[in-house]
Amino acid sequence: MEENVIFIGSKPVMNYVLAVVTQFNGGADHVSLKARGKAISRAVDTAEIVRNGFIPNADVEDISIATEQIDTYNGEKTNVSTIEIKIVKKSE
Amino acid sequence: MEENVIFIGSKPVMNYVLAVVTQFNGGADHVSLKARGKAISRAVDTAEIVRNGFIPNADVEDISIATEQIDTYNGEKTNVSTIEIKIVKKSE
Repeated sequence: MEENVIFIGSKPVMNYVLAVVTQFNGGADHVSLKARGKAISRAVDTAEIVRNGFIPNADVEDISIATEQIDTYNGEKTNVSTIEIKIVKKSE
Repeated sequence: MEENVIFIGSKPVMNYVLAVVTQFNGGADHVSLKARGKAISRAVDTAEIVRNGFIPNADVEDISIATEQIDTYNGEKTNVSTIEIKIVKKSE
């Protein structure tokens, strides 16, 4: 399991906000949010809620997007967009 | 109207891909995609389809996220996440 990486899925956004806050409170100095497809919007929400509401000295260090090929349920290949948002905690 | 800015809404993604390709073919050297809320995923899809499928020498120069306050239909204020994806055309 990649360290400090949180995969954003279809749960309520506050689940992921709590996961990020827990990692930072546990001593992490950076956390990466990874999401695909429609969950991309939720990953952006998570990052924004964390830095505006929970970890004032957190900042978005880098955002990268890419395309992954995945297998559909009937065995075909399809492209899906991905995002990775790296959040860092600036020293106070 | 800000130049070279395409606002991503709820139309099919190919509408926006076509808009970006049209701007680049019209001589633009950069195009910015702006989206809010659930349309953020579609903005990332648009950028990825443009650079993987239509404009091979296009690249994502910068991605920024933020939070905007908007009025809901019953007059309350609510926060919504926003994204801006700046796509540039590298000289061939």
